[in-house]
Amino acid sequence: MSKPIKDTLILQTGGTIDKIYPQQPGAYGFEIGQPAMENIMSRISPGFPFLFETVCTKDSQEITDADREDILRFVVEGDQQLILITHGTDTMCETARYLVRAGVGQGSNFGPGVGEKVVAITGAFKPECMKDTDADFNVGFALGFLQASSAPGVYVVMNGCAIPGAHAIRNQNGKFVDDRDVLSRF
Amino acid sequence: MSKPIKDTLILQTGGTIDKIYPQQPGAYGFEIGQPAMENIMSRISPGFPFLFETVCTKDSQEITDADREDILRFVVEGDQQLILITHGTDTMCETARYLVRAGVGQGSNFGPGVGEKVVAITGAFKPECMKDTDADFNVGFALGFLQASSAPGVYVVMNGCAIPGAHAIRNQNGKFVDDRDVLSRF
Amino acid sequence: MSKPIKDTLILQTGGTIDKIYPQQPGAYGFEIGQPAMENIMSRISPGFPFLFETVCTKDSQEITDADREDILRFVVEGDQQLILITHGTDTMCETARYLVRAGVGQGSNFGPGVGEKVVAITGAFKPECMKDTDADFNVGFALGFLQASSAPGVYVVMNGCAIPGAHAIRNQNGKFVDDRDVLSRF
Amino acid sequence: MSKPIKDTLILQTGGTIDKIYPQQPGAYGFEIGQPAMENIMSRISPGFPFLFETVCTKDSQEITDADREDILRFVVEGDQQLILITHGTDTMCETARYLVRAGVGQGSNFGPGVGEKVVAITGAFKPECMKDTDADFNVGFALGFLQASSAPGVYVVMNGCAIPGAHAIRNQNGKFVDDRDVLSRF
Repeated sequence: MSKPIKDTLILQTGGTIDKIYPQQPGAYGFEIGQPAMENIMSRISPGFPFLFETVCTKDSQEITDADREDILRFVVEGDQQLILITHGTDTMCETARYLVRAGVGQGSNFGPGVGEKVVAITGAFKPECMKDTDADFNVGFALGFLQASSAPGVYVVMNGCAIPGAHAIRNQNGKFVDDRDVLSRF
Repeated sequence: MSKPIKDTLILQTGGTIDKIYPQQPGAYGFEIGQPAMENIMSRISPGFPFLFETVCTKDSQEITDADREDILRFVVEGDQQLILITHGTDTMCETARYLVRAGVGQGSNFGPGVGEKVVAITGAFKPECMKDTDADFNVGFALGFLQASSAPGVYVVMNGCAIPGAHAIRNQNGKFVDDRDVLSRF
Repeated sequence: MSKPIKDTLILQTGGTIDKIYPQQPGAYGFEIGQPAMENIMSRISPGFPFLFETVCTKDSQEITDADREDILRFVVEGDQQLILITHGTDTMCETARYLVRAGVGQGSNFGPGVGEKVVAITGAFKPECMKDTDADFNVGFALGFLQASSAPGVYVVMNGCAIPGAHAIRNQNGKFVDDRDVLSRF
Repeated sequence: MSKPIKDTLILQTGGTIDKIYPQQPGAYGFEIGQPAMENIMSRISPGFPFLFETVCTKDSQEITDADREDILRFVVEGDQQLILITHGTDTMCETARYLVRAGVGQGSNFGPGVGEKVVAITGAFKPECMKDTDADFNVGFALGFLQASSAPGVYVVMNGCAIPGAHAIRNQNGKFVDDRDVLSRF
């Protein structure tokens, strides 16, 4: 018998994936626009059930522990076991560790609403509005990983890899890697 | 301890995902261009090991059982447990069933080189060369699903769902669904 | 004193520029979708007045002299002096010559509603829905050419060149060139 | 007899059209990447002769009169009568006026190397690397306008309009308009 397709909670927090080019004269930086997830979903005709919620819409360098507290609350209070978080790349690993320390995905002794969750945190190196964005692939990878996952956990999902949150780091080339792989090579 | 990232074998067979607009005057239909996977991979800086092989480059209405025999041989002879096949949408389900009938992913009594494989067959409703393609998402979903999979099997991966090959059908809206879900709703 | 910005009549006839990928299972060729001009105009916030009309929506290999008669009627009956026609590449030159033979843009002795028109026929080698389309550039070039034109005429506008309709041909590389340039080089 | 296709000098100065998303961690704003013109030209197989030169690669808020002096020198010293300048939108009008005050395009009494030039200054509201960029259209419009132009001048080319440099302003909606049109409406 096949595993049924499970509900997924999708949380927006901002970051590169959601950035658009500023429209007013004289602006320098990027702005957060409408959720990239809306555009990605419109391209795929999703056949799976999901709920989309916005936690915040910030560049990830501006994400504070108060924002992470909000993210945690959405994760814990949601009925869904599977959770996708879109997030800026600069502090993706910090948010992953925050959730790990709170017991998210750390096993059944933390309770079904916390310890048994599977959380994939992803984003993009290039905004969804750009021609050569990695947003669609990353979101697809994260959702595919969640559907097939058999064990709880918090994962940073980038570069076609799902890295356990307790070990996710960004190397000097900007890629997300497992710190144990880095150490084991030296 | 984290599960190590596993090697993936990626097989090209053609289909919509690889189609480009014909360049010579007077042409009507689409042509198969260079593998869409090359463009998709160039956007994500893949951090996982993979081997890319071309089995054939056909519109999937032209895929024959001789082509499926070739696909099966690549699947069986590859060292990799995880296999992604890019394929045209029109006969994706037929190829999935062909592999299932040959024992691929059907359990350890078929042997490690056949029964323990995990195969995800995906493609696109719109070619990778189009602005609103679903190719990146679908390939991402399939690769994420493969990395997290804990049980062997053959899956049709489209519309953000991984459907067991023995039950994958295309409904009257053109979406890929599990035939048991269709039945259970009537 | 500046020349005022002139009204432009934009006529759709179909062709590669308007093609989309077929959405139903089993289809091979491209279909004509909604006018590419709508998408192009949405990207530029046009500051000039224009009227958009659809004459037909055909692959240009299927354009007949009856269709050209319809195009001619729109050209002659429109109040606008400036006319942009989007058209398939395969028979763009034939339509240009048809209009030239009818006196369009051939000077004031043909009357202001015919002889003084400036007509630019353009299209695309790759559909507007594709990532690397030439549609936006070609339409832009044609509209810029029309605004600055000081003499009537019918022009085929492709590859960043406006070629008089009586001399526009497609060379063996598929590029649009002036047949006098081709001759003068041999 | 047809007018021959004229050589065009294309000058890069930077601006939104050339901006890319920053690749290093922790960055906020956009960076200037490789010239957008290279990508635009690769999409159209240009059939006209042109020379491409880089004057500077700056956000247009940072363009100084020393940079404008450099732009003027390229304009005056080039053999070409037709000149396209890609430029940031914030100070496009200032650069246009600078060239007008120096006599560029202001008639034959300024000499053939200055007064008889036709200069089109264009750019983009959204970078060329974005899916819904206006860069291709704007550059196309500017080049088409230059090819058809029968009188010298300096023009700001945006929103499908070529506005004489002495009168180009940006209105409160961010669109480029002729200040005489604005005044005449009040």
